[in-house]
Amino acid sequence: MKLQLALDQIDLNACCALLDQIADLIDIAEIGTPLIMQEGAAAVRRVKDDFPHLEVLADLKIMDAGAHEAAIGFDAGADIVTVLGVAHDSTIGGVIDQARASQRQVMVDLIATPDAAQRAAQLDVMGADYLCVHTAYDIQSQGHDPLEELQRVQTLLRHGAMAVAGGVKPQIMPGLLPYNPEIVVVGGFITGHDDPRQAAQAIKEHFPQEQ
Amino acid sequence: MKLQLALDQIDLNACCALLDQIADLIDIAEIGTPLIMQEGAAAVRRVKDDFPHLEVLADLKIMDAGAHEAAIGFDAGADIVTVLGVAHDSTIGGVIDQARASQRQVMVDLIATPDAAQRAAQLDVMGADYLCVHTAYDIQSQGHDPLEELQRVQTLLRHGAMAVAGGVKPQIMPGLLPYNPEIVVVGGFITGHDDPRQAAQAIKEHFPQEQ
Repeated sequence: MKLQLALDQIDLNACCALLDQIADLIDIAEIGTPLIMQEGAAAVRRVKDDFPHLEVLADLKIMDAGAHEAAIGFDAGADIVTVLGVAHDSTIGGVIDQARASQRQVMVDLIATPDAAQRAAQLDVMGADYLCVHTAYDIQSQGHDPLEELQRVQTLLRHGAMAVAGGVKPQIMPGLLPYNPEIVVVGGFITGHDDPRQAAQAIKEHFPQEQ
Repeated sequence: MKLQLALDQIDLNACCALLDQIADLIDIAEIGTPLIMQEGAAAVRRVKDDFPHLEVLADLKIMDAGAHEAAIGFDAGADIVTVLGVAHDSTIGGVIDQARASQRQVMVDLIATPDAAQRAAQLDVMGADYLCVHTAYDIQSQGHDPLEELQRVQTLLRHGAMAVAGGVKPQIMPGLLPYNPEIVVVGGFITGHDDPRQAAQAIKEHFPQEQ
Protein backbone atom coordinates (compact mmCIF):
# COMPACT_ATOMS: atom_id res chain seq x y z
CA MET A 1 0.00 0.00 0.00
CA LYS A 2 1.37 3.39 -1.05
CA LEU A 3 0.60 6.83 0.35
CA GLN A 4 0.08 9.51 -2.28
CA LEU A 5 0.14 13.09 -1.04
CA ALA A 6 -2.07 15.38 -3.10
CA LEU A 7 -0.42 18.79 -3.18
CA ASP A 8 -3.64 20.75 -3.32
CA GLN A 9 -2.19 24.22 -2.72
CA ILE A 10 -1.26 26.56 -5.57
CA ASP A 11 1.92 27.89 -3.98
CA LEU A 12 4.73 25.72 -5.32
CA ASN A 13 7.26 26.90 -2.75
CA ALA A 14 4.87 26.02 0.06
CA CYS A 15 4.31 22.59 -1.50
CA CYS A 16 8.04 21.91 -1.68
CA ALA A 17 8.48 23.11 1.91
CA LEU A 18 5.79 20.62 2.97
CA LEU A 19 7.52 17.84 1.04
CA ASP A 20 10.77 18.71 2.79
CA GLN A 21 9.03 17.86 6.07
CA ILE A 22 7.36 14.58 5.11
CA ALA A 23 8.92 13.18 1.94
CA ASP A 24 10.19 10.16 3.89
CA LEU A 25 6.63 9.27 4.90
CA ILE A 26 5.07 9.25 1.43
CA ASP A 27 5.54 7.26 -1.77
CA ILE A 28 3.96 9.44 -4.44
CA ALA A 29 3.82 13.24 -4.70
CA GLU A 30 0.74 14.34 -6.62
CA ILE A 31 0.97 17.65 -8.44
CA GLY A 32 -2.68 18.63 -7.98
CA THR A 33 -4.82 19.99 -10.80
CA PRO A 34 -5.00 23.54 -9.34
CA LEU A 35 -1.21 23.64 -8.97
CA ILE A 36 -0.81 22.59 -12.61
CA MET A 37 -3.30 25.27 -13.67
CA GLN A 38 -1.30 27.83 -11.70
CA GLU A 39 2.29 26.78 -12.48
CA GLY A 40 2.09 24.44 -15.45
CA ALA A 41 4.50 21.60 -16.10
CA ALA A 42 7.25 23.45 -14.22
CA ALA A 43 5.65 22.28 -10.98
CA VAL A 44 6.03 18.65 -12.07
CA ARG A 45 9.64 19.19 -13.07
CA ARG A 46 10.58 20.98 -9.86
CA VAL A 47 9.12 18.32 -7.58
CA LYS A 48 10.74 15.51 -9.58
CA ASP A 49 14.09 17.33 -9.55
CA ASP A 50 13.94 18.14 -5.84
CA PHE A 51 12.57 14.75 -4.71
CA PRO A 52 13.96 12.23 -7.19
CA HIS A 53 13.28 9.25 -4.92
CA LEU A 54 9.52 9.95 -4.95
CA GLU A 55 7.17 8.91 -7.70
CA VAL A 56 5.48 11.98 -9.14
CA LEU A 57 1.89 11.94 -10.39
CA ALA A 58 0.66 14.81 -12.57
CA ASP A 59 -3.08 15.15 -11.98
CA LEU A 60 -3.76 16.42 -15.49
CA LYS A 61 -7.33 14.99 -15.58
CA ILE A 62 -6.96 14.56 -19.34
CA MET A 63 -10.25 14.78 -21.27
CA ASP A 64 -9.07 15.07 -24.90
CA ALA A 65 -5.92 14.90 -27.04
CA GLY A 66 -4.80 12.00 -24.86
CA ALA A 67 -1.40 11.19 -26.34
CA HIS A 68 -0.42 14.85 -26.69
CA GLU A 69 -1.41 15.90 -23.18
CA ALA A 70 0.09 12.82 -21.56
CA ALA A 71 3.39 13.65 -23.26
CA ILE A 72 3.38 17.07 -21.60
CA GLY A 73 3.26 15.38 -18.20
CA PHE A 74 5.81 12.69 -19.01
CA ASP A 75 8.21 15.17 -20.65
CA ALA A 76 8.14 17.16 -17.42
CA GLY A 77 9.16 14.08 -15.45
CA ALA A 78 5.86 12.62 -14.26
CA ASP A 79 5.89 8.90 -13.52
CA ILE A 80 2.09 8.74 -13.66
CA VAL A 81 -0.51 10.98 -15.34
CA THR A 82 -4.27 10.96 -14.84
CA VAL A 83 -7.02 10.74 -17.44
CA LEU A 84 -10.74 10.99 -16.72
CA GLY A 85 -12.91 7.89 -16.82
CA VAL A 86 -15.59 9.96 -18.59
CA ALA A 87 -13.26 10.69 -21.54
CA HIS A 88 -13.71 8.89 -24.84
CA ASP A 89 -12.04 5.47 -25.16
CA SER A 90 -9.78 6.88 -27.88
CA THR A 91 -8.54 9.57 -25.50
CA ILE A 92 -7.82 7.08 -22.71
CA GLY A 93 -6.21 4.75 -25.24
CA GLY A 94 -3.97 7.59 -26.40
CA VAL A 95 -2.82 8.21 -22.84
CA ILE A 96 -2.12 4.51 -22.31
CA ASP A 97 -0.17 4.28 -25.59
CA GLN A 98 1.90 7.31 -24.65
CA ALA A 99 2.59 5.82 -21.22
CA ARG A 100 3.75 2.54 -22.75
CA ALA A 101 6.01 4.41 -25.22
CA SER A 102 7.50 6.41 -22.34
CA GLN A 103 7.61 3.48 -19.90
CA ARG A 104 5.42 5.39 -17.47
CA GLN A 105 1.97 4.78 -15.99
CA VAL A 106 -1.65 5.89 -16.22
CA MET A 107 -4.21 6.42 -13.49
CA VAL A 108 -7.83 6.67 -14.58
CA ASP A 109 -9.78 9.02 -12.32
CA LEU A 110 -13.32 7.69 -11.96
CA ILE A 111 -14.64 10.98 -10.57
CA ALA A 112 -18.25 11.58 -11.63
CA THR A 113 -18.11 8.53 -13.88
CA PRO A 114 -21.54 6.91 -14.26
CA ASP A 115 -21.42 3.15 -13.65
CA ALA A 116 -17.87 3.58 -12.38
CA ALA A 117 -17.26 -0.10 -11.70
CA GLN A 118 -18.28 -1.21 -15.20
CA ARG A 119 -16.20 1.58 -16.69
CA ALA A 120 -13.25 0.55 -14.52
CA ALA A 121 -13.54 -3.02 -15.78
CA GLN A 122 -13.45 -1.82 -19.42
CA LEU A 123 -10.44 0.40 -18.83
CA ASP A 124 -8.69 -2.33 -16.89
CA VAL A 125 -8.85 -4.48 -20.03
CA MET A 126 -7.57 -1.54 -22.10
CA GLY A 127 -4.43 -1.42 -19.95
CA ALA A 128 -4.95 1.27 -17.32
CA ASP A 129 -2.42 0.81 -14.53
CA TYR A 130 -4.52 2.33 -11.75
CA LEU A 131 -8.26 2.85 -11.39
CA CYS A 132 -9.01 5.57 -8.87
CA VAL A 133 -12.32 5.65 -7.00
CA HIS A 134 -12.55 9.37 -6.32
CA THR A 135 -15.17 11.26 -4.35
CA ALA A 136 -15.15 14.80 -5.77
CA TYR A 137 -14.19 17.59 -3.38
CA ASP A 138 -17.37 19.38 -4.37
CA ILE A 139 -19.63 16.55 -3.14
CA GLN A 140 -17.74 15.48 -0.02
CA SER A 141 -20.22 17.35 2.19
CA GLN A 142 -23.12 15.42 0.64
CA GLY A 143 -22.45 12.21 2.55
CA HIS A 144 -21.35 10.16 -0.47
CA ASP A 145 -20.04 6.74 0.61
CA PRO A 146 -17.28 5.38 -1.65
CA LEU A 147 -17.08 1.95 -0.01
CA GLU A 148 -19.67 0.25 -2.19
CA GLU A 149 -17.91 1.52 -5.31
CA LEU A 150 -14.55 0.35 -3.97
CA GLN A 151 -15.93 -3.09 -3.41
CA ARG A 152 -17.44 -3.33 -6.90
CA VAL A 153 -14.27 -2.05 -8.58
CA GLN A 154 -12.10 -4.43 -6.57
CA THR A 155 -14.23 -7.37 -7.67
CA LEU A 156 -13.95 -6.49 -11.36
CA LEU A 157 -10.26 -5.61 -11.77
CA ARG A 158 -8.08 -8.25 -13.41
CA HIS A 159 -4.89 -6.39 -14.33
CA GLY A 160 -4.72 -2.88 -12.87
CA ALA A 161 -4.59 -1.79 -9.27
CA MET A 162 -7.04 0.31 -7.30
CA ALA A 163 -6.56 3.74 -5.79
CA VAL A 164 -8.90 5.69 -3.55
CA ALA A 165 -9.11 9.47 -3.22
CA GLY A 166 -11.34 12.17 -1.83
CA GLY A 167 -11.65 13.15 1.81
CA VAL A 168 -9.40 10.38 3.11
CA LYS A 169 -8.53 10.80 6.81
CA PRO A 170 -7.58 8.40 9.62
CA GLN A 171 -11.18 7.75 10.71
CA ILE A 172 -12.12 6.24 7.35
CA MET A 173 -8.97 4.15 6.91
CA PRO A 174 -10.40 1.07 8.72
CA GLY A 175 -13.29 1.06 6.25
CA LEU A 176 -10.94 1.17 3.26
CA LEU A 177 -8.60 -1.58 4.37
CA PRO A 178 -10.79 -4.58 3.45
CA TYR A 179 -10.59 -3.48 -0.20
CA ASN A 180 -6.80 -3.31 -0.08
CA PRO A 181 -6.24 -0.32 -2.39
CA GLU A 182 -2.74 -0.14 -3.86
CA ILE A 183 -2.68 3.66 -3.47
CA VAL A 184 -4.37 5.79 -0.81
CA VAL A 185 -4.50 9.47 -1.80
CA VAL A 186 -4.56 12.03 1.02
CA GLY A 187 -4.72 15.78 0.50
CA GLY A 188 -6.31 18.26 2.89
CA PHE A 189 -5.98 16.12 6.01
CA ILE A 190 -2.20 16.39 5.68
CA THR A 191 -1.73 19.66 3.80
CA GLY A 192 -4.12 21.54 6.08
CA HIS A 193 -2.89 20.01 9.34
CA ASP A 194 -1.00 22.01 11.95
CA ASP A 195 1.49 19.15 12.13
CA PRO A 196 1.70 17.49 8.69
CA ARG A 197 4.19 14.87 9.92
CA GLN A 198 1.86 13.78 12.65
CA ALA A 199 -1.02 13.73 10.16
CA ALA A 200 0.88 11.54 7.71
CA GLN A 201 1.87 9.20 10.51
CA ALA A 202 -1.76 8.98 11.67
CA ILE A 203 -2.68 7.74 8.19
CA LYS A 204 0.23 5.32 7.97
CA GLU A 205 -0.60 3.75 11.31
CA HIS A 206 -3.49 2.12 9.49
CA PHE A 207 -1.34 0.68 6.70
CA PRO A 208 -0.83 -3.08 6.77
CA GLN A 209 2.53 -4.02 8.30
CA GLU A 210 5.07 -4.94 5.65
CA GLN A 211 6.13 -8.57 5.82
CA MET B 1 -21.23 35.58 -34.21
CA LYS B 2 -17.77 35.58 -32.64
CA LEU B 3 -14.62 33.82 -33.78
CA GLN B 4 -12.67 32.11 -31.00
CA LEU B 5 -9.13 31.05 -31.87
CA ALA B 6 -8.03 27.98 -29.92
CA LEU B 7 -4.32 28.33 -29.26
CA ASP B 8 -3.57 24.63 -29.39
CA GLN B 9 0.21 24.85 -29.43
CA ILE B 10 2.29 24.61 -26.27
CA ASP B 11 4.83 27.26 -27.25
CA LEU B 12 3.54 30.51 -25.74
CA ASN B 13 5.85 32.72 -27.79
CA ALA B 14 4.65 31.08 -31.00
CA CYS B 15 1.03 31.58 -29.89
CA CYS B 16 1.63 35.28 -29.25
CA ALA B 17 3.40 35.64 -32.60
CA LEU B 18 0.33 34.10 -34.26
CA LEU B 19 -1.96 36.48 -32.39
CA ASP B 20 0.18 39.40 -33.59
CA GLN B 21 -0.73 38.38 -37.13
CA ILE B 22 -4.46 37.87 -36.75
CA ALA B 23 -5.71 39.52 -33.55
CA ASP B 24 -7.83 41.94 -35.59
CA LEU B 25 -9.70 39.03 -37.17
CA ILE B 26 -10.71 37.24 -33.99
CA ASP B 27 -12.86 38.04 -30.97
CA ILE B 28 -11.75 35.55 -28.34
CA ALA B 29 -8.30 34.08 -27.72
CA GLU B 30 -8.57 30.63 -26.16
CA ILE B 31 -5.66 29.51 -24.00
CA GLY B 32 -5.90 25.81 -24.88
CA THR B 33 -5.75 23.07 -22.27
CA PRO B 34 -2.29 21.80 -23.37
CA LEU B 35 -0.89 25.35 -23.20
CA ILE B 36 -2.25 25.72 -19.66
CA MET B 37 -0.73 22.35 -18.71
CA GLN B 38 2.60 23.54 -20.11
CA GLU B 39 2.72 27.16 -18.95
CA GLY B 40 0.04 27.51 -16.28
CA ALA B 41 -1.89 30.68 -15.56
CA ALA B 42 1.02 32.77 -16.85
CA ALA B 43 -0.16 32.01 -20.38
CA VAL B 44 -3.56 33.53 -19.62
CA ARG B 45 -2.00 36.60 -18.06
CA ARG B 46 0.45 37.17 -20.91
CA VAL B 47 -2.20 36.96 -23.65
CA LYS B 48 -4.57 39.25 -21.71
CA ASP B 49 -1.76 41.75 -21.11
CA ASP B 50 -0.51 41.70 -24.68
CA PHE B 51 -3.96 41.70 -26.34
CA PRO B 52 -6.21 43.64 -23.96
CA HIS B 53 -8.89 44.27 -26.58
CA LEU B 54 -9.49 40.51 -27.00
CA GLU B 55 -11.63 38.41 -24.74
CA VAL B 56 -9.54 35.61 -23.24
CA LEU B 57 -10.96 32.17 -22.52
CA ALA B 58 -9.01 29.80 -20.26
CA ASP B 59 -9.85 26.25 -21.34
CA LEU B 60 -9.39 24.82 -17.85
CA LYS B 61 -11.93 21.99 -18.42
CA ILE B 62 -12.73 22.11 -14.70
CA MET B 63 -13.90 18.78 -13.24
CA ASP B 64 -13.76 19.42 -9.48
CA ALA B 65 -13.17 22.20 -6.94
CA GLY B 66 -15.19 24.48 -9.20
CA ALA B 67 -15.03 27.78 -7.34
CA HIS B 68 -11.35 27.39 -6.50
CA GLU B 69 -10.17 26.44 -9.99
CA ALA B 70 -12.33 29.09 -11.69
CA ALA B 71 -10.71 31.70 -9.46
CA ILE B 72 -7.27 30.66 -10.76
CA GLY B 73 -8.40 31.48 -14.29
CA PHE B 74 -10.17 34.71 -13.40
CA ASP B 75 -7.31 35.93 -11.20
CA ALA B 76 -5.00 35.48 -14.20
CA GLY B 77 -7.25 37.71 -16.31
CA ALA B 78 -9.55 35.25 -18.08
CA ASP B 79 -12.91 36.64 -19.17
CA ILE B 80 -14.34 33.15 -19.58
CA VAL B 81 -13.36 29.78 -18.07
CA THR B 82 -14.57 26.34 -19.11
CA VAL B 83 -16.06 23.59 -16.96
CA LEU B 84 -16.96 20.09 -18.17
CA GLY B 85 -20.59 19.15 -18.68
CA VAL B 86 -19.80 15.76 -17.12
CA ALA B 87 -18.77 17.38 -13.82
CA HIS B 88 -21.07 17.26 -10.81
CA ASP B 89 -23.74 19.98 -10.59
CA SER B 90 -22.06 21.32 -7.45
CA THR B 91 -18.79 21.78 -9.36
CA ILE B 92 -20.47 23.60 -12.24
CA GLY B 93 -22.48 25.67 -9.76
CA GLY B 94 -19.26 26.64 -8.00
CA VAL B 95 -17.77 27.84 -11.29
CA ILE B 96 -20.91 29.84 -12.09
CA ASP B 97 -20.96 31.42 -8.62
CA GLN B 98 -17.30 32.38 -8.94
CA ALA B 99 -17.96 33.88 -12.37
CA ARG B 100 -20.85 35.97 -11.02
CA ALA B 101 -18.71 37.16 -8.09
CA SER B 102 -15.94 38.12 -10.52
CA GLN B 103 -18.28 39.51 -13.19
CA ARG B 104 -16.89 37.03 -15.69
CA GLN B 105 -18.40 34.19 -17.70
CA VAL B 106 -18.61 30.41 -17.88
CA MET B 107 -18.59 28.10 -20.87
CA VAL B 108 -19.72 24.53 -20.29
CA ASP B 109 -17.84 22.13 -22.56
CA LEU B 110 -20.22 19.31 -23.55
CA ILE B 111 -17.38 17.09 -24.79
CA ALA B 112 -18.18 13.40 -24.19
CA THR B 113 -21.31 14.37 -22.26
CA PRO B 114 -24.01 11.71 -22.54
CA ASP B 115 -27.39 13.21 -23.50
CA ALA B 116 -25.62 16.48 -24.20
CA ALA B 117 -28.75 18.40 -25.15
CA GLN B 118 -30.63 17.50 -21.96
CA ARG B 119 -27.55 18.32 -19.92
CA ALA B 120 -27.20 21.64 -21.75
CA ALA B 121 -30.80 22.49 -20.89
CA GLN B 122 -30.19 21.80 -17.17
CA LEU B 123 -27.02 23.87 -17.10
CA ASP B 124 -28.71 26.65 -19.04
CA VAL B 125 -31.22 26.95 -16.19
CA MET B 126 -28.35 26.92 -13.68
CA GLY B 127 -26.88 30.00 -15.34
CA ALA B 128 -24.17 28.83 -17.73
CA ASP B 129 -23.34 31.63 -20.17
CA TYR B 130 -22.23 29.40 -23.05
CA LEU B 131 -22.95 25.78 -23.88
CA CYS B 132 -20.32 24.38 -26.21
CA VAL B 133 -21.08 21.47 -28.53
CA HIS B 134 -17.59 20.01 -28.83
CA THR B 135 -16.42 17.11 -30.97
CA ALA B 136 -13.33 15.76 -29.21
CA TYR B 137 -10.08 15.93 -31.15
CA ASP B 138 -9.60 12.23 -30.46
CA ILE B 139 -12.83 11.24 -32.27
CA GLN B 140 -12.75 13.68 -35.18
CA SER B 141 -11.52 10.96 -37.49
CA GLN B 142 -14.50 8.76 -36.59
CA GLY B 143 -17.01 10.71 -38.69
CA HIS B 144 -18.99 12.14 -35.77
CA ASP B 145 -21.57 14.67 -36.99
CA PRO B 146 -22.24 17.49 -34.49
CA LEU B 147 -25.13 19.04 -36.42
CA GLU B 148 -27.88 17.01 -34.81
CA GLU B 149 -26.57 17.86 -31.36
CA LEU B 150 -26.33 21.54 -32.32
CA GLN B 151 -29.93 21.53 -33.41
CA ARG B 152 -31.14 19.86 -30.22
CA VAL B 153 -29.13 22.18 -27.99
CA GLN B 154 -30.34 25.24 -29.90
CA THR B 155 -33.96 24.17 -29.40
CA LEU B 156 -33.57 23.76 -25.65
CA LEU B 157 -31.56 26.83 -24.62
CA ARG B 158 -33.53 29.64 -22.97
CA HIS B 159 -30.85 31.87 -21.44
CA GLY B 160 -27.33 30.95 -22.48
CA ALA B 161 -25.75 31.04 -25.91
CA MET B 162 -24.36 28.21 -27.99
CA ALA B 163 -20.76 27.61 -29.07
CA VAL B 164 -19.41 24.97 -31.42
CA ALA B 165 -15.92 23.47 -31.38
CA GLY B 166 -13.94 20.61 -32.81
CA GLY B 167 -12.63 20.33 -36.34
CA VAL B 168 -14.25 23.53 -37.59
CA LYS B 169 -13.06 24.58 -41.07
CA PRO B 170 -14.59 26.59 -43.93
CA GLN B 171 -16.25 23.56 -45.58
CA ILE B 172 -18.42 22.88 -42.55
CA MET B 173 -19.39 26.50 -41.87
CA PRO B 174 -22.47 26.44 -44.17
CA GLY B 175 -23.80 23.48 -42.16
CA LEU B 176 -23.34 25.33 -38.86
CA LEU B 177 -24.98 28.61 -39.87
CA PRO B 178 -28.63 27.51 -39.58
CA TYR B 179 -28.04 26.93 -35.86
CA ASN B 180 -26.59 30.42 -35.41
CA PRO B 181 -23.95 29.65 -32.76
CA GLU B 182 -22.84 32.71 -30.81
CA ILE B 183 -19.23 31.48 -30.81
CA VAL B 184 -17.41 29.43 -33.45
CA VAL B 185 -14.16 27.92 -32.14
CA VAL B 186 -11.40 27.24 -34.66
CA GLY B 187 -8.04 25.74 -33.81
CA GLY B 188 -5.92 23.64 -36.14
CA PHE B 189 -7.36 25.00 -39.38
CA ILE B 190 -5.90 28.40 -38.50
CA THR B 191 -2.95 27.50 -36.25
CA GLY B 192 -1.70 24.85 -38.65
CA HIS B 193 -2.23 26.86 -41.84
CA ASP B 194 0.63 28.19 -43.95
CA ASP B 195 -1.17 31.53 -44.05
CA PRO B 196 -3.14 31.93 -40.80
CA ARG B 197 -4.57 35.30 -41.90
CA GLN B 198 -5.99 33.79 -45.02
CA ALA B 199 -7.35 30.86 -43.00
CA ALA B 200 -9.10 33.16 -40.52
CA GLN B 201 -10.55 35.19 -43.39
CA ALA B 202 -11.81 32.00 -45.05
CA ILE B 203 -13.76 31.22 -41.88
CA LYS B 204 -15.06 34.76 -41.48
CA GLU B 205 -16.35 34.88 -45.06
CA HIS B 206 -19.09 32.57 -43.83
CA PHE B 207 -20.10 34.78 -40.91
CA PRO B 208 -23.44 36.59 -41.29
CA GLN B 209 -22.98 40.19 -42.40
CA GLU B 210 -23.34 42.58 -39.50
CA GLN B 211 -26.35 44.85 -39.85
